[in-house]
This record gives sequence, C-alpha cells and structure tokens, in this order.
Amino acid sequence: MTERSFAVVPATDDDWSAIWPFFREIVADGESYAFPLDLTEQTGRPWWMEQPPGRTVVARAGDGRVLGSAKWGPNRPGRGSHVATASFMVDPAARGLGVGRALATHVVAAAATAGYAGMQFNAVVETNTAAVALWTALGFRVVGTVPRAFDSRRHGLVGLHVMYRPLAADDPAPPTANGS
Amino acid sequence: MTERSFAVVPATDDDWSAIWPFFREIVADGESYAFPLDLTEQTGRPWWMEQPPGRTVVARAGDGRVLGSAKWGPNRPGRGSHVATASFMVDPAARGLGVGRALATHVVAAAATAGYAGMQFNAVVETNTAAVALWTALGFRVVGTVPRAFDSRRHGLVGLHVMYRPLAADDPAPPTANGS
Repeated sequence: MTERSFAVVPATDDDWSAIWPFFREIVADGESYAFPLDLTEQTGRPWWMEQPPGRTVVARAGDGRVLGSAKWGPNRPGRGSHVATASFMVDPAARGLGVGRALATHVVAAAATAGYAGMQFNAVVETNTAAVALWTALGFRVVGTVPRAFDSRRHGLVGLHVMYRPLAADDPAPPTANGS
Repeated sequence: MTERSFAVVPATDDDWSAIWPFFREIVADGESYAFPLDLTEQTGRPWWMEQPPGRTVVARAGDGRVLGSAKWGPNRPGRGSHVATASFMVDPAARGLGVGRALATHVVAAAATAGYAGMQFNAVVETNTAAVALWTALGFRVVGTVPRAFDSRRHGLVGLHVMYRPLAADDPAPPTANGS
C-alpha cells in the first residue's frame, strides 16, 4: 500500500461491540488463542478491553470500521512488570492488508517508549505459522516451546511457543519491520 | 523423618489468615514471585485462594499450624486447559522439613489423577536454585528461559524459567520423588 487505509488508535469502550464478532470467530476457529470457550459479548469484554496500565488499540479504517485490535501491558505484576506482553486479532475479513503488522509495529514501539525492557508472548501456537513468521520478522525469537500445550481444532495437540524480544527506546523495531 | 509431622490437605477459607504472613514475607523478600507489591491481606486473598477448578492446599502440622501452601489448576482456559500449573510457598520458619517436596508431590499426583496432560511452571526464578533443583528432581525440565524477566531484590535482573513435565495417571511422579 502506498497509503495506509487505516490508523492504529486507542480503543474506546464502544469499540468492543465491533471487536467482539471477530474475537468470537477467531476463538471459535480454535487455532490461535486459549480463551474460555463459553464467553459472551458481556463476559468476553474484560478478556480484551484492558484497564490501565494495560492498553487496547484498534486499527480503524477511514470509514470507521474496526479491522483489528491489540492489547498490551505488563506481562506480570511486581518484580516482573518491566516486561510487556501483547495479544493481537485481525478481522478475518480484513486479512492481507497489513493490519497485523501495523498493530504489532505500533505496540512494540509504544511499549519501548513506555520504558518496558522487553516483550514476551506467552503462548504462540506453533502451527499458527503466519503469526510466528510475523513475530520473527519483528525481532522476536522462540525462547522455548511447551509441548502439546494447545488443543488445535485442526491439528490436535501442538506446542505453544514462548517468544521474546528486548526493547529499547531508541530501537523500537528492527529495520525489517519499518515498512508498514 | 520416619513419620510425617504434617499432612497436605485442602485449604479452608480460614487458612488464608495463616498463609498471609508468610505469603507477604516471601513476596517482600523479592526472590521468587512476581506478585503485586502492594497487596493487603484482603486484596492478596484471590491471588492465592483458588476458585474451582483451581485448588489450594496447605501442609498442616499436627498442632494445626500451616507450614506451607500450594495452589494449582488449569494454566490456561479453553484450548489450553488440559495443562496444569501450580505455585508453592513454604513458611520460612518451616524450611528443611520437606514441606515443599511434600506439597509438590501431592500436587503433581493430584493433577495427574484429575486428568491433566502435563504441568507447566510459567516463571521459575533462575536464581531460586532450591526451587529449580526440586522441580528437576520431580521430573520437570527447563523449556526455555526468558532473559532478565525478574527483578530480583538481591541479584538484579535474572531470567525466568518456563518448566514443564508431562503427567500420566499411572505415573504421577518419577521414582526420585516418591520418598517424601
């Protein structure tokens, strides 16, 4: 794209009703997230809409449509709160537009600016090759893989990668991630 | 010990007031757990006293004193709920009595009996060598180490191990763990 057709901006409370349909679809698809399987629009909200110091952002198209969303914040409280974590969902109807990469680049840069020392993903499904490739391109590496820890709907029991990259305020993302 | 001077039993609601003093001491010591640093007896309770399907147990001495506690349950909801996790705390005044090993042996066996396929520790502080040695003796292995993810009070930024062992109902613990 020569022009970006969407912007990554803070989510408002009203955005949840637009996120929920693709959140539900992605969880039900069973290939990427270990969220509860019985969530409703009401009970699902706190699983995605973060309270400070967490943040939730959306990729909003020019016409206002929400194409994807990300949430991020400290991975642990207390003596682990200097490492961030994040989660990402892109509306399947908006795939191929670079939404995931734009969300990820935004979140990595924002976490670096906020002073986090690194970012950890706790559970990247190893068969979710698009996600693994994107995180690798953005400078994350696989720290380890917990065997058979995710019950993929199509693949059965597969591993969950723990992925990590250090962050520094003057190096928010490696060069390969700066074209989005 | 030729006789065990304590028993591992389900915690009651009343046990929290006995757990809280050593929970607070261990968190403040800053070498093993990334819990919030501003917890009170009231706000700390839900961080340790599990709701089903989670479980909290205590090691109770013959005189009723609580020597240590453990909590365990599914590590993740939904498509990750077949893997358990657990946390352990032993009153520093009761160290050296085998309380930690007895709690761990109990929890591993109970999780296997409950049908979990494995047990994962998400954040074992690498400088907590007593814990790492115990988990290794109980059949856990280090899946990977997230660098500098824990701000140890004495050691500064140190790694957090992700540790894992498979469970099977007919093999609740390896032979080295069966003497407690």
